[in-house]
Amino acid sequence: MNRKMVFFTLGQLLLIEAALMVLPLIVALIYKEPTALHFLATIIATAVTGGVLMLTLRKHSTVIYAREGFAIVSISWIALSLFGALPFFLSNEIPSYIDAFFETVSGFTTTGASILENVEALSHGMLFWRSFTHWIGGMGVLVFYMAILSGASEKSIHIMRAEVAGPIVGKLVPKAKDTARVLYLIYIVLTVVETIMLLFGGMSLFDSVVHSFGTAGTGGFGIKVNSLAGYSPYCQWVITAFMIVFGINFNLYYLLLIRRFKSVLKNTELWVFLGIVLASVAVISVNIYSMYGSVSETIRHSAFQVASIVSTSGYSTVDFNLWPGLSKTILLLLMFMGSCAGSTAGGLKVSRVILLFKMCRNELRHLLNPRSVNVVKIDGKQVDSAILKNAANYFSLYMFCFAGIFLLLAFEPFSIETNFTATIACFNNIGPGLDAVGPASSFFAYSPFSKLLLSFAMLLGRLEIFPMILLFSKGLWRKK
Amino acid sequence: MNRKMVFFTLGQLLLIEAALMVLPLIVALIYKEPTALHFLATIIATAVTGGVLMLTLRKHSTVIYAREGFAIVSISWIALSLFGALPFFLSNEIPSYIDAFFETVSGFTTTGASILENVEALSHGMLFWRSFTHWIGGMGVLVFYMAILSGASEKSIHIMRAEVAGPIVGKLVPKAKDTARVLYLIYIVLTVVETIMLLFGGMSLFDSVVHSFGTAGTGGFGIKVNSLAGYSPYCQWVITAFMIVFGINFNLYYLLLIRRFKSVLKNTELWVFLGIVLASVAVISVNIYSMYGSVSETIRHSAFQVASIVSTSGYSTVDFNLWPGLSKTILLLLMFMGSCAGSTAGGLKVSRVILLFKMCRNELRHLLNPRSVNVVKIDGKQVDSAILKNAANYFSLYMFCFAGIFLLLAFEPFSIETNFTATIACFNNIGPGLDAVGPASSFFAYSPFSKLLLSFAMLLGRLEIFPMILLFSKGLWRKK
Repeated sequence: MNRKMVFFTLGQLLLIEAALMVLPLIVALIYKEPTALHFLATIIATAVTGGVLMLTLRKHSTVIYAREGFAIVSISWIALSLFGALPFFLSNEIPSYIDAFFETVSGFTTTGASILENVEALSHGMLFWRSFTHWIGGMGVLVFYMAILSGASEKSIHIMRAEVAGPIVGKLVPKAKDTARVLYLIYIVLTVVETIMLLFGGMSLFDSVVHSFGTAGTGGFGIKVNSLAGYSPYCQWVITAFMIVFGINFNLYYLLLIRRFKSVLKNTELWVFLGIVLASVAVISVNIYSMYGSVSETIRHSAFQVASIVSTSGYSTVDFNLWPGLSKTILLLLMFMGSCAGSTAGGLKVSRVILLFKMCRNELRHLLNPRSVNVVKIDGKQVDSAILKNAANYFSLYMFCFAGIFLLLAFEPFSIETNFTATIACFNNIGPGLDAVGPASSFFAYSPFSKLLLSFAMLLGRLEIFPMILLFSKGLWRKK
Repeated sequence: MNRKMVFFTLGQLLLIEAALMVLPLIVALIYKEPTALHFLATIIATAVTGGVLMLTLRKHSTVIYAREGFAIVSISWIALSLFGALPFFLSNEIPSYIDAFFETVSGFTTTGASILENVEALSHGMLFWRSFTHWIGGMGVLVFYMAILSGASEKSIHIMRAEVAGPIVGKLVPKAKDTARVLYLIYIVLTVVETIMLLFGGMSLFDSVVHSFGTAGTGGFGIKVNSLAGYSPYCQWVITAFMIVFGINFNLYYLLLIRRFKSVLKNTELWVFLGIVLASVAVISVNIYSMYGSVSETIRHSAFQVASIVSTSGYSTVDFNLWPGLSKTILLLLMFMGSCAGSTAGGLKVSRVILLFKMCRNELRHLLNPRSVNVVKIDGKQVDSAILKNAANYFSLYMFCFAGIFLLLAFEPFSIETNFTATIACFNNIGPGLDAVGPASSFFAYSPFSKLLLSFAMLLGRLEIFPMILLFSKGLWRKK
């Protein structure tokens, strides 16, 4: 691979991170918190490292292939998390660096799994930075980079493919750079709308902003020990709605913008997704009705938790670990599926599940009529066989990774249910699991080894496995 | 499909079942048990039904395609279980017909999951029949049919493909009929050798025979409440060894017979399988050492349980539900994998896991070098792309089925761990799961609906999904 170019780009990305960290610095200054100093120190360290990388490697060829795309994405996500963890560690608000790293990876990957036992003890600056990492990681730091840097356009689609989730990543508009801009524009507008709607509900500005960050990135870091249980039903409904909104493919919002309504209405993934959400809410509502006072409260909790899990956010308004088995099983299955491709959510993605389902159906048809030729169509278009193969292999690799992480986690003294759901909660970027890692608990009790393992799992999940695995391949590092 | 031919064949199979039931009838007579009458009644009912089917449908074309193969297999397995359940029900030893059906399906599919709370209350005739169903189902009733009936040869390979497990089913010798004979010959010889070895250990003739049936079919029905805990270490070791032996591809034994030792030594699946077994035994031994008195006892229990689970038998010498999380997690992962293709064991099969793994590796290579051409090889031979596609789709379908069964089972008031492992224990034909369906418990507490669901899951797993699903397809039933 073109190492100079990869690490030069990393330098640029670290400078961007340093610039983004000015925001929490300002927040800390507003609240007159001493942590402002720690943000400043981190900004300087990050900027200097980025600057040195850029200066030493400025003479590089700009040739970029798929391998460089994967390398940039995987290396930069690790590096950004290593630097992003510094404020937590320097301020001693998270005394262990491994814990701080876990928390930051959890932020960038929009997982929302936390090692904090009392999040309310954190300063405003830290809380802001923690939620801001969700927002940065949600749409992707490299998509951001493409959107703002002029030189980035030719690096283009290879990076985008490696960072944006889903089986099929196309360009909305002819240029990858413009696509990145459109995506970020939609992202910003939706985040602002949510913030305003929360403000209308009486939520404070600070709370509105951090919760909007967390929703937009489908992250799930709360700022209260009981997540969103203490906020008004109105605010809970707003967040429910936006968790669903951010779980839908952003391409559809672009299609709405350019008034191609028919294409939106014909989108298979959207309807399957909404159908599954509604069915889950209905069944869970019936199942948990006896636990709550009224129909409206029941539906609110049911809808909130379903939206939170299916969008892999991880906010909660109740401790769903106490729900009956049927409801927990539905949530567990939703954890695996996740939301739509091209959204900020994690999981297998609805479109990939649809592809796998259609491939199975074709296989059955083929068994009955061995000479028949069957193609897989989505939204009326035939899906390329390479994409189908990739989806099938992705699913196998996904399960292999899941089994591997689950096995390594078994060295911990926790129940199988705890380790199983901790694995899926991190790997699919959800946040809370069940049992000892349920919404009322944290990941604090895991050993440092397991915390690093789960951090790796979060990165694997957010970047859809391939980039992180390829990082260990000799083939990636070989010089052209 | 050629319905006449399918139901004519079913008639033949029912006659075979009636004939096979003479054995438990003799056992009942030897022990002077009144259940002899119930066997006699069942034999008459089964034979008459079979005879009527054969007589009314004797004029049929013998044309057989893949669809007829699937139909024969799925329909006959259900019918044989419906009739096989009669002795339990008629004798009132299992008062509910659904329970009796569950137990019989569990027998034929070599699952070994039981609804009996006190197996020791059963008569000898019933215990014999129960274990004998394991032996019949292990190698497959249709393979048996092919081996003994002269007219079966042209129906041949389509039936074999549908009943024998694994991604690649080939013929050992040019004729499918002769292949079936070779397979059954090996099967019988191994069963007899095991029986003799158990007799040498001081086990009674009855106990030796039924345990050999259970081992050969990798079934797992015991005749004591504590399964094999009460037998001598020697007997436990013999059964451990034979569970592994019956988990290995029978083709290898044929290769040994015709002295192609090199082919055996080069068999990838064999070495991967044995490697995983040894590694699991080693790790579990270290993990459980403190629970047992000596190294030899620890290794014995560890090896027995690993062999039992990986071969999907389900016998036990200890209640492994009480083992620490790491050991339970390893067993849980082994439950999914199962043993070698072409053996009597269930699960995904080692060779299929190897195929999926190699396909993932190729996908990663393809991502690095999009123009590279990668083929998957097993034992030095290139694997056909249709087989690869089938393996990938099988895996997806397997997971869809697993999720579906697990979801429907969630209506039961049991823990997630119970329902999850009940699903895998039935679907992969293992027998016991963890928690409330652990080796010290039974499936008695499940509702009739769940018992039927789990019976379906056992059939799905034993016949490798496709035949059972196709049964619901209009395409299968359409007249040619």
